[in-house]
Amino acid sequence: MSKTEYNIIGQRPARPDAIEKVTGQANFGADFTLPRMLHGKALRSDYAHARIISIDTSAAEKIDGVKAVVTGRDFEHMTPGGAGDLTRDNLAIEKVLYHGHAVAAVAAISQAIAEQALSAIKVEYEELPPVMTLDEAMQDAVILHEHNLKDGKPSNIRSYEQRSAGNIEQGLAQADEIVELEFTTPTVHQGYIEPPACLANYNDKGQSSLWSTTQGHFPLRDSVAQMMQMEQSELRVIPAEVGGAFGGKIATYQEAIAMLLSKKSGRPVQMRMTREDVFRTAGPGAGSKIRVKVGAKKDGTLTAVSAWLAYECGIGGGPMAGGVRAIFAPYDIPNVFVEGYGVYVNKPKVRAYRGPGAPQAVLAAEGAIDELVQKLGMDPIEFRLKNAVREGTESHNGIFRKIGLVECLEAAQQSEHYKTPLKANQGRAVSAGFWHNGAGVSSASLHMYSDGTAELATGSVDLSGTRIALAMMTAEELGIPVSQVSSIVADTSSVGFGGNSAGSRTINATGQAAVEASRDVVEQMKQRAASGWNVVSDQVAWEDGAAVNQATGERLTVAEICRTADGTGGPIGGRYSHSAVAGLGPSFAVHICDAEVDPDTGKVSIVRYTAVQDAGTAIHRDAVEGQMQGGAVQGIGWAMNEEFVYNDRGAIENPGFLDYRVPLASDLPMIETIVVEVPNELHPHGVRGVGEAPIIPPLAAVAGAVSNAIGVRITETPCSPPKVLAAIQQKG
Amino acid sequence: MSKTEYNIIGQRPARPDAIEKVTGQANFGADFTLPRMLHGKALRSDYAHARIISIDTSAAEKIDGVKAVVTGRDFEHMTPGGAGDLTRDNLAIEKVLYHGHAVAAVAAISQAIAEQALSAIKVEYEELPPVMTLDEAMQDAVILHEHNLKDGKPSNIRSYEQRSAGNIEQGLAQADEIVELEFTTPTVHQGYIEPPACLANYNDKGQSSLWSTTQGHFPLRDSVAQMMQMEQSELRVIPAEVGGAFGGKIATYQEAIAMLLSKKSGRPVQMRMTREDVFRTAGPGAGSKIRVKVGAKKDGTLTAVSAWLAYECGIGGGPMAGGVRAIFAPYDIPNVFVEGYGVYVNKPKVRAYRGPGAPQAVLAAEGAIDELVQKLGMDPIEFRLKNAVREGTESHNGIFRKIGLVECLEAAQQSEHYKTPLKANQGRAVSAGFWHNGAGVSSASLHMYSDGTAELATGSVDLSGTRIALAMMTAEELGIPVSQVSSIVADTSSVGFGGNSAGSRTINATGQAAVEASRDVVEQMKQRAASGWNVVSDQVAWEDGAAVNQATGERLTVAEICRTADGTGGPIGGRYSHSAVAGLGPSFAVHICDAEVDPDTGKVSIVRYTAVQDAGTAIHRDAVEGQMQGGAVQGIGWAMNEEFVYNDRGAIENPGFLDYRVPLASDLPMIETIVVEVPNELHPHGVRGVGEAPIIPPLAAVAGAVSNAIGVRITETPCSPPKVLAAIQQKG
Repeated sequence: MSKTEYNIIGQRPARPDAIEKVTGQANFGADFTLPRMLHGKALRSDYAHARIISIDTSAAEKIDGVKAVVTGRDFEHMTPGGAGDLTRDNLAIEKVLYHGHAVAAVAAISQAIAEQALSAIKVEYEELPPVMTLDEAMQDAVILHEHNLKDGKPSNIRSYEQRSAGNIEQGLAQADEIVELEFTTPTVHQGYIEPPACLANYNDKGQSSLWSTTQGHFPLRDSVAQMMQMEQSELRVIPAEVGGAFGGKIATYQEAIAMLLSKKSGRPVQMRMTREDVFRTAGPGAGSKIRVKVGAKKDGTLTAVSAWLAYECGIGGGPMAGGVRAIFAPYDIPNVFVEGYGVYVNKPKVRAYRGPGAPQAVLAAEGAIDELVQKLGMDPIEFRLKNAVREGTESHNGIFRKIGLVECLEAAQQSEHYKTPLKANQGRAVSAGFWHNGAGVSSASLHMYSDGTAELATGSVDLSGTRIALAMMTAEELGIPVSQVSSIVADTSSVGFGGNSAGSRTINATGQAAVEASRDVVEQMKQRAASGWNVVSDQVAWEDGAAVNQATGERLTVAEICRTADGTGGPIGGRYSHSAVAGLGPSFAVHICDAEVDPDTGKVSIVRYTAVQDAGTAIHRDAVEGQMQGGAVQGIGWAMNEEFVYNDRGAIENPGFLDYRVPLASDLPMIETIVVEVPNELHPHGVRGVGEAPIIPPLAAVAGAVSNAIGVRITETPCSPPKVLAAIQQKG
Repeated sequence: MSKTEYNIIGQRPARPDAIEKVTGQANFGADFTLPRMLHGKALRSDYAHARIISIDTSAAEKIDGVKAVVTGRDFEHMTPGGAGDLTRDNLAIEKVLYHGHAVAAVAAISQAIAEQALSAIKVEYEELPPVMTLDEAMQDAVILHEHNLKDGKPSNIRSYEQRSAGNIEQGLAQADEIVELEFTTPTVHQGYIEPPACLANYNDKGQSSLWSTTQGHFPLRDSVAQMMQMEQSELRVIPAEVGGAFGGKIATYQEAIAMLLSKKSGRPVQMRMTREDVFRTAGPGAGSKIRVKVGAKKDGTLTAVSAWLAYECGIGGGPMAGGVRAIFAPYDIPNVFVEGYGVYVNKPKVRAYRGPGAPQAVLAAEGAIDELVQKLGMDPIEFRLKNAVREGTESHNGIFRKIGLVECLEAAQQSEHYKTPLKANQGRAVSAGFWHNGAGVSSASLHMYSDGTAELATGSVDLSGTRIALAMMTAEELGIPVSQVSSIVADTSSVGFGGNSAGSRTINATGQAAVEASRDVVEQMKQRAASGWNVVSDQVAWEDGAAVNQATGERLTVAEICRTADGTGGPIGGRYSHSAVAGLGPSFAVHICDAEVDPDTGKVSIVRYTAVQDAGTAIHRDAVEGQMQGGAVQGIGWAMNEEFVYNDRGAIENPGFLDYRVPLASDLPMIETIVVEVPNELHPHGVRGVGEAPIIPPLAAVAGAVSNAIGVRITETPCSPPKVLAAIQQKG
């Protein structure tokens, strides 16, 4: 089905959730309250690494208005390793492992009393040296998790992965030009605006409730149930609107603690992180160190690439696999060797950050390619077209089905931007990124109402306008206006399981569920009509929102069928759950960045930026373009300004948006977008996924453009003025 | 399937909702709040009947902190008659029709400012004579609704119904004994504890939300959407726990007003009735006047019955049809003539009150039968057994399928209570009641979780423990413990349509939906297992919560199938919606009441009371017995104490529980229960419905017992001391 056949898909209807958000009507994590609600607060470690000798909560417990005090000992039933790390991540037991790690929590009738109680808790620590960098950590001199073994010995190496094809030595031997570079990126923040917040209401005999701002209320339900030793059916999680997440809210930060406090106090407990809590303790994006080596023949044929990637895990997690998958993914190369390490450091558990692992990997890969292309004296897009993966290419990500990289490169090449000459002190770079696009478990229920309007309920949190896009896909199938389809994120008790909204999976996997539920409903509507006409369902067609009797031409619209549904068998509805196969529709993005560098100060200005992307079918065009622009902006911020600055005790010195500078609208040009649509053959509406691909090229595009402006290769982000100025001065 | 085959049905598991309620954890209508919430209040008429000349809200609008003011003019798009009466019921337009009728409403930042604003609204009225009694109203001298015509002329007669069989005159001619009596009952309150409360959050572009304590959030959604001119999909109604309803919360009292205030103010608006508001303005139970004539042969064979019934409607509504259906329903009589009137009076729209219309009708019917039995010198149960309807009897309620009246009468006859002799000043009466049991539209969704637990979501509000009973039916079908099935009432966006929880329909109709959804899930689980075993589904049996390979004996439990469901096709779930056929499983109840009368004061004490009822299959035994006891108690209260006292201006003089006396535990003996189970052949678990039948006999049982104690027929409730004393003194 090509896009020209759609009536609704590809349009730009107003997003109800966006209107709610800008008018202040939307309810976020901290907006839920209940009668008799207590305020929960966590006591946080002032050490980045220390053994807990003792915790004395007796004084805190005696304070008037304090209703419950908990420590990690309340989760002692969870043994270290596996699920036990989940509780230790939330509330330290044997050791604190990062500055700000929670060691105890209280619930009190006011925030002030809760804070007073925290200051009355006495914790005795034995301080240990904090391990803050990949280099230090990989020496295994100081160990974070004694139970984590490598070659039988305690180690900070959490994970290792290797992929290879052909013979890297032979490949390099065939190369006429070889580039070898090492890149580093710091620990960063996802930059979401809404601090995590939740409200827990424990119910001893019935079903407990939890409101939270989360990317996945079902996985959150499963985690909290596990920590609280509840059955899944004993816990109902109600998702809040999410004020930004970008991977940072696929996590259980304080929900289990709030639930534990609610259990102990017998009252609802709200917990809200402060902004400082968020910066210090919520899962950051991983710092990385990546070494790459690329070789090509004089004609531009890539002969070999190798990469060594190390990513921070914090005390767990980490996106190494995403880096291994993304690195050199756009290139058809006979000889490949890639190995990746996930490494524990004394920082909070690293969480996903939009396209996890890929921007760092692509910074290194595309930086080296950019250098190589210059050595070869080729046009960077011509080089990429020559080596591009396409339908049938066998790569370290498998054999590609129909993909849109070539189309993206051609669109970039033909863009006005790419044809525009640069001015003085300006540099340009092109960068190509890959995202596999997630799949996984999704469910949808569709309920038809007696006035012919419809309600789609899914279990997938809406981070980026997915509700309206799912409504469009449903309306398209039913043949009714999108204004007649409401689309909600239902709670965990009211719809089938939905995985995290992450990995650009929602419109793909949940969209498929919505389409199948709609087709189920259409089938039922045809049957109702057929039965009224005394014909079999096969003799009824579905056209433009109506059942059509093919023999007589009689029509019954959705509204007409629904109006009489109670009398023809009851209300009409459909449901669909599935586990969508991963890697269905990978996306490629090609970005062009023009940067201008002030040679006196090293200050970088992005003067022009174009994002090209194969979105598959673009369901909601504004949402797709918005994702492309937002991803580019986030990547530009990461490239130019963003980094956590740690002191020698392992504490962040810039825990707020004043000192951790995300880009403002005034810092940026309008991001130009070119949407390429190569439909995903395996999706009923051709969807691939959109959200992550656009953050993957910008680090390389910005660093490359700056490098090309100053004539020195920048191999470390952020490209902040001191660093760029030093590079200019070093060049002389 | 006989009851002995059940594993879970018939047990008494703890009710999670009951525990929440007694521990204060449950959230009722007034417990929901939102940020920026305003407080809405209604200005209420001090006249019971008046024309509205003008409403001046300008001064109120100017008060600081007042964010919106509305009057009935905001609903002017709704024309009188039909749907227009819905808005006029909520907010008067042309006329106020009862004392307390809302004429305007405000939303302000505090309750105090809202009240100040109400006092600043000026309303000019033209007072009209209030029509407070059935006698006055039926004279049509003063008309409430000019658009309501009878024989082409404006009339207070809202409805008329007539049923007849045989020839009443011939039947009476065959009788050896005839009794003719007239009974009256006053306007009463349902006695629920929680005043109606709601929270409305209007959303201009997306979906508006409404939290409310209601017996049916779907019908409420439809009413409010209609009044607000919204599509059904534009409104999501989230049901609260209900603190008693008994028919009184099948209504839109203030929800549309709150939504209108939210629309005008752009902020969430909460509205809560005070207790006085509830008594003065929420829909009461109907007052009645009923004349009956019964004739029988010497051998006790009933030959004819006739009845004339008049019920108050208030300004709309009214339970006349229920009275016509219930009267003489337990008797097989060849000659019947029944006619009923619904009559407008200047009282709030009459709402359902448990077994609507039937208790009043049975008071009259069974009072006359009691008198007749005494004239015949027969045993009252023998008389009823002789004339009882049974399977195949053709009555004015149609031809009965298998029913349990005879079984109930026999159980009453064999009870220890019935065999126990009376003491001085005591009287005994037996009364038989009938309820058809409702059906209608119900939906259920069943979601299976990866740990093998299950969640049942229905659209039916839980008034009486229906959640646990539905969980039991689901657990029975799945073959897992009931503790592993959670059962929720989902909001209108998250599940298929469910009608009001009323008419004793929920466990019948929604229960059927739950069973069908469960069977769908079992079928899917069998298919998953079959596919793993490489056999067809037909070769798999379902036994005790496990799929069994009939060839090999291999077993896969629910938990095992669910644990791997993501890999075998995705999460498992089922849904079912239907419109259940009415009258599937009628119930009969037989009550025995022993009353003792203090001859000096007229004070009545109920000394022993037994409720016998055919429940069909009793799903949750505690809940069934609780309903039987609760219904009996409510009926005893109605019979003994309860009545609204109106002054000559049509205002209630006892608007509170201090002066409107409902029975306390200390007023009553333990109500003995005998559950008879004659399964309903048309229901998969044999359910009939339980909630209404037990309130139907008590008025007659109490009044009959008092009559028999003092030797004077009491024909008017309540049997309060002055009335009983007057009867004693009149007898002399």
